[in-house]
Amino acid sequence: MNAPVKSPDAPARQALVLFMPSGKRGRFPVGTPILEAARSLGVYVESVCGGRATCGRCQVEVQEGQFAKHGITSSSDHISAIGPKEQRYAEKRELKSGRRLSCSATIEGDLVVDVPQDVQVNAQTIRKDVDTRIIARNPAVHMCYVEVEEPDMHKPLGDLDRLKAAIEKDWGYRDLQVDSYLLPRIQRILREGKWGVTAAIHQDEAGDRPALMALWPGLKNEAYGIACDIGSTTIAMHLSSLLSGRTLASAGASNPQIRFGEDLMSRVSYVMMNPDGREAMTLAVREAVNGLIDKVCAEGGIAREDILDAVFVGNPIMHHLFLGIDPTELGGAPFALAVSGAVHLKSSDIGLAVNLGTRVYMLPCIAGHVGADAAAATLSEGPHRQEEMMLLVDVGTNAEIVLGNRQRTVAASSPTGPAFEGAEISGGQRAAPGAIERVRIDPATLEPKFRIIGVEQWSDEPGFAEAAARTGITGICGSAIIEVIAEMYLTGIISEDGVVDGSLAARSPRITANGRTFSYLLHDGAPRIAITQNDVRAIQLAKAALYAGVKLLMDKLGIDHVDQIRFAGAFGSFIDPKYAMVLGLIPDCELENVKAVGNAAGTGARMALLNRDYRREIEETVRRIEKIETALEPKFQEHFVHAMAIPNKVDPFPKLSAAVKLPERKSDGEGSTGPGDATPRRRSREERAARRNRG
Amino acid sequence: MNAPVKSPDAPARQALVLFMPSGKRGRFPVGTPILEAARSLGVYVESVCGGRATCGRCQVEVQEGQFAKHGITSSSDHISAIGPKEQRYAEKRELKSGRRLSCSATIEGDLVVDVPQDVQVNAQTIRKDVDTRIIARNPAVHMCYVEVEEPDMHKPLGDLDRLKAAIEKDWGYRDLQVDSYLLPRIQRILREGKWGVTAAIHQDEAGDRPALMALWPGLKNEAYGIACDIGSTTIAMHLSSLLSGRTLASAGASNPQIRFGEDLMSRVSYVMMNPDGREAMTLAVREAVNGLIDKVCAEGGIAREDILDAVFVGNPIMHHLFLGIDPTELGGAPFALAVSGAVHLKSSDIGLAVNLGTRVYMLPCIAGHVGADAAAATLSEGPHRQEEMMLLVDVGTNAEIVLGNRQRTVAASSPTGPAFEGAEISGGQRAAPGAIERVRIDPATLEPKFRIIGVEQWSDEPGFAEAAARTGITGICGSAIIEVIAEMYLTGIISEDGVVDGSLAARSPRITANGRTFSYLLHDGAPRIAITQNDVRAIQLAKAALYAGVKLLMDKLGIDHVDQIRFAGAFGSFIDPKYAMVLGLIPDCELENVKAVGNAAGTGARMALLNRDYRREIEETVRRIEKIETALEPKFQEHFVHAMAIPNKVDPFPKLSAAVKLPERKSDGEGSTGPGDATPRRRSREERAARRNRG
Repeated sequence: MNAPVKSPDAPARQALVLFMPSGKRGRFPVGTPILEAARSLGVYVESVCGGRATCGRCQVEVQEGQFAKHGITSSSDHISAIGPKEQRYAEKRELKSGRRLSCSATIEGDLVVDVPQDVQVNAQTIRKDVDTRIIARNPAVHMCYVEVEEPDMHKPLGDLDRLKAAIEKDWGYRDLQVDSYLLPRIQRILREGKWGVTAAIHQDEAGDRPALMALWPGLKNEAYGIACDIGSTTIAMHLSSLLSGRTLASAGASNPQIRFGEDLMSRVSYVMMNPDGREAMTLAVREAVNGLIDKVCAEGGIAREDILDAVFVGNPIMHHLFLGIDPTELGGAPFALAVSGAVHLKSSDIGLAVNLGTRVYMLPCIAGHVGADAAAATLSEGPHRQEEMMLLVDVGTNAEIVLGNRQRTVAASSPTGPAFEGAEISGGQRAAPGAIERVRIDPATLEPKFRIIGVEQWSDEPGFAEAAARTGITGICGSAIIEVIAEMYLTGIISEDGVVDGSLAARSPRITANGRTFSYLLHDGAPRIAITQNDVRAIQLAKAALYAGVKLLMDKLGIDHVDQIRFAGAFGSFIDPKYAMVLGLIPDCELENVKAVGNAAGTGARMALLNRDYRREIEETVRRIEKIETALEPKFQEHFVHAMAIPNKVDPFPKLSAAVKLPERKSDGEGSTGPGDATPRRRSREERAARRNRG
Repeated sequence: MNAPVKSPDAPARQALVLFMPSGKRGRFPVGTPILEAARSLGVYVESVCGGRATCGRCQVEVQEGQFAKHGITSSSDHISAIGPKEQRYAEKRELKSGRRLSCSATIEGDLVVDVPQDVQVNAQTIRKDVDTRIIARNPAVHMCYVEVEEPDMHKPLGDLDRLKAAIEKDWGYRDLQVDSYLLPRIQRILREGKWGVTAAIHQDEAGDRPALMALWPGLKNEAYGIACDIGSTTIAMHLSSLLSGRTLASAGASNPQIRFGEDLMSRVSYVMMNPDGREAMTLAVREAVNGLIDKVCAEGGIAREDILDAVFVGNPIMHHLFLGIDPTELGGAPFALAVSGAVHLKSSDIGLAVNLGTRVYMLPCIAGHVGADAAAATLSEGPHRQEEMMLLVDVGTNAEIVLGNRQRTVAASSPTGPAFEGAEISGGQRAAPGAIERVRIDPATLEPKFRIIGVEQWSDEPGFAEAAARTGITGICGSAIIEVIAEMYLTGIISEDGVVDGSLAARSPRITANGRTFSYLLHDGAPRIAITQNDVRAIQLAKAALYAGVKLLMDKLGIDHVDQIRFAGAFGSFIDPKYAMVLGLIPDCELENVKAVGNAAGTGARMALLNRDYRREIEETVRRIEKIETALEPKFQEHFVHAMAIPNKVDPFPKLSAAVKLPERKSDGEGSTGPGDATPRRRSREERAARRNRG
């Protein structure tokens, strides 16, 4: 030990230690193990072996230099020299240069200590990084290696009882509960491990008694979890290490419930019409989830039994069907959820083929049409964590909308219907190779150009025809529907009321009569893809519903603009914020503050998997969120009528206008919104309620 | 309201209320409901409906008169008049005269209130009273009626979440966990009950989060539990009401594991020799338990699903096999239990065909050969609750011995072998009709008389021959073996060393030579029943082992006599304490303080079923009990050798001598204990260890 300045009679010398990236700091007596110092400050450093220098999970790195701001001169001389146990680890396993095991290295002077996020002790390749976000870890499952006293006739405590005593002594877990499936296995595991075993301890909520959920002979230095978003169309799963936080594999699959009904309402109907319908759909989704578990385990190169925790999210109907709950109540007012709070289960409760002790956590649902997926997206994007006012929209058949900031958050769903997914559009289709995904219209000639999925070139570029021949040009998907209608508006083909201007037929052969109304011909092939007056109306209805929902939330908060907009979900990833705003799908906002965030629900699920504090955070947030039932709000209809106009009959879009030249208003007759058959008539509550479930 | 002495400005007048039989008392403001007063004092009064005057469980009775000792003049005028809700209950259901519903009746003056133990609100007949003991109740399962808010689109909390809120509001249970099997059922039950439901809440240990374990529409005014003692030979079960404490039915069955091996050691061997042996035996005992559940439910006229709690006890090998644990480790030193502490399970963990939410509790095991049955017997008899020194013995093939008082308790097992059960005795048999159960020998003539099971008369009384003809005289069972050998000693047929005195052959034809030794002819029929020298030796070995174990425990406590002796178990119920003491099976004690307590283990299990405080009491007691491994104690052999003599080579039996004239000592040669082949040789530890598991 080199402690040059220590005089024999001095009290224990203190050193200042700063942990990065958390920035937590404290003074500790010289000689304190760094792991202990980190723990006492609440800095999360993993350790499985309990300070035996065998698991290698507790690596840290000393940053050398003067840190004037903190008053610290940090040096590798201020950490103890490598001792024999640490040396043995470094020789047997790989310890990167500069890395130290914080269980063995002690504080000998002021230090800046970096807790690296890349600690990996096995050869596993990280196949995919789901996103670059580093999620602070505090998992609900803790791996604890212990050495258990051998049986002694003088102290006839049972093997399990001595195991519990060892866990309490080394890891501080008192009053341990034990998963019953372990009782017949404990003696064999203890003897196989020669009295050294690794216990997986589950403790989620503060009031929970810790539970012994799995046990392995010897040192078990890995533990995994899955985060899964069960969508009506697609199920997406991530496999993450609970010890390093890394994502090892991701996979997706179609939701096999589609065979019972394409959209949500038809699935609820199937349950209502078929005595075994609920059971069949529950079985189908659970089988699909088990199939995905197989897939991510194969990709990650791990065994199913090493999955110890699982987080699921989904919209309320998916959530209920996955849990085996009949969703019929969600099919009609008052849309009563069977359970809205977070759900805690064991794998065996829902037939997950993983470890028998694996725990399952489902995030809370916000309301009857705002599910655990919206809660997870909220957790991911964090409107409730910031000062700026954030609008979070997940556009599906039913749009889930969350709006708020640190002070107050509100949520609603709006019955957009399936138009955004191409379902009520004459040439519409799901996003797939061959589908038109981008559209531009020349304002002078009114000639379009477009891109299709699977082809790099625009339709007016060389090589497009050859490339497109492989798939054909099959239809138009959601993102392009937004763009084409916005471009039609920007080029004057439709008015702000959405009426296709028949007078333009004189200027362009693409404007053609279609009975009493006119269409715009986008592609003259097979199939012939035209945007009809009805298509425009369908998009107007959908976007008006979404915008009206957003406006209700803005009314509730008393605000007239939002600072940030986040589009969650697959649809949001492909639409161009500019066109969405031109169309008046979303309120006015700086374009650079409108972002697509992809599968935010999946990210939120991963956060809840890796850190139980995030579970408490979203539970508390969901409790605080004020839920607005759009169908019950008297102003919905008024907002809806105004939002039928492009971008809006009454709301100005100053920020958008600064970025995009919007056309002069062609019509300003109040309530004059175009030909009779497309008038946005007052819809009854029931109609609207029914719409919202199609999707 | 009649409050004659209340002046308008006086502060709330207080009244003194004494609850009987608990004796708890306190002052309460006039107007306080009696149920509330009882609860605040910790007086257990059941209530399911939560003060709605519909369940009738909270009945009390006012004792009228002057209670000078307490300074209370109690009168039925000091309780509020019957209100409309209580009146309605009294009319619709039956409310005995003098009884009041304590949820509705309020305190109006000083009262002595009796909480009756016979409250029964259903027509069920109490078929059997297992014993007359009244067990104070505090069950782990609580029935709670609540009225739940209907769903509201403005507050989209789930049905379960509103149910939880109602339970917290009315009954104070926070952070309720929910059994997962209920999730798909909650909506139907709430609607079936028109938003009035009864929840069964389970909370056992103090640190447990309360759990919603079952739910019924409307008021569910019954809940039951089973207490079961799984013996190697017999399984006994009681069905009790958790609400009234009454026992509705009791049933017993042979342990079907007998087909795998008569005694414990042969069952362990079966597991070791047969790959599926453990599974087969687990299945067998669980099936037998389910059969008994059917039986007690049929007898009690209830449904299996109304059983909500279950307590099991058994010796360590039965305990392990029931839990599905391989008992091989218990077959050899160091006799390691897989688990010694109390075990908490759900019914589905062990395949009990009851309610899906039913909880299972198993008492702790004391040591590798002192099981949960001994713990239950300890709980029942309570050596640890009193000042006097109590010896509690459960004599089976392996005797479980507990000795102690409030200050200190010790326990051990002793390898008595199966002689007491008739297994190593030439004419021995199990207790069954036709078996000799009582024996007297005339000291003058040496002629015996006896009684057989199933016949009232003694063998020398008129009518015996006719009555005995029905069954025959088939053998001698445990209780009679004790008596005949004690009588042989008292009449001088055997010496204190157990040697049959061949010289008496001259006086009586019943003393006959048998090779180098002599026998005593008890019954000259078919079969011929004689007590051989080997029979005497077998009993000497068995009783010496038991006595030596008791002596080790007395040594450990530093005492030379015990104040109380309790014989638990079937064998103990039939042996005459006097003869047991003459033989030196048990230490000297006042004969009136030696009592057979029957199935004390079953009683202890019932106590743990009806009152979770008893669970904590026995868990704490078992932790405190000092366990003695007889095989490891150097003095065991010395005690054993002394105990081979009748009653004992060195210990005086002054209290016995005062009650029974013991013979003069015939022999006092140290170590001279008789013919060579029966000498109590030093047995190896292994031999003794092996013996203990036979039975």
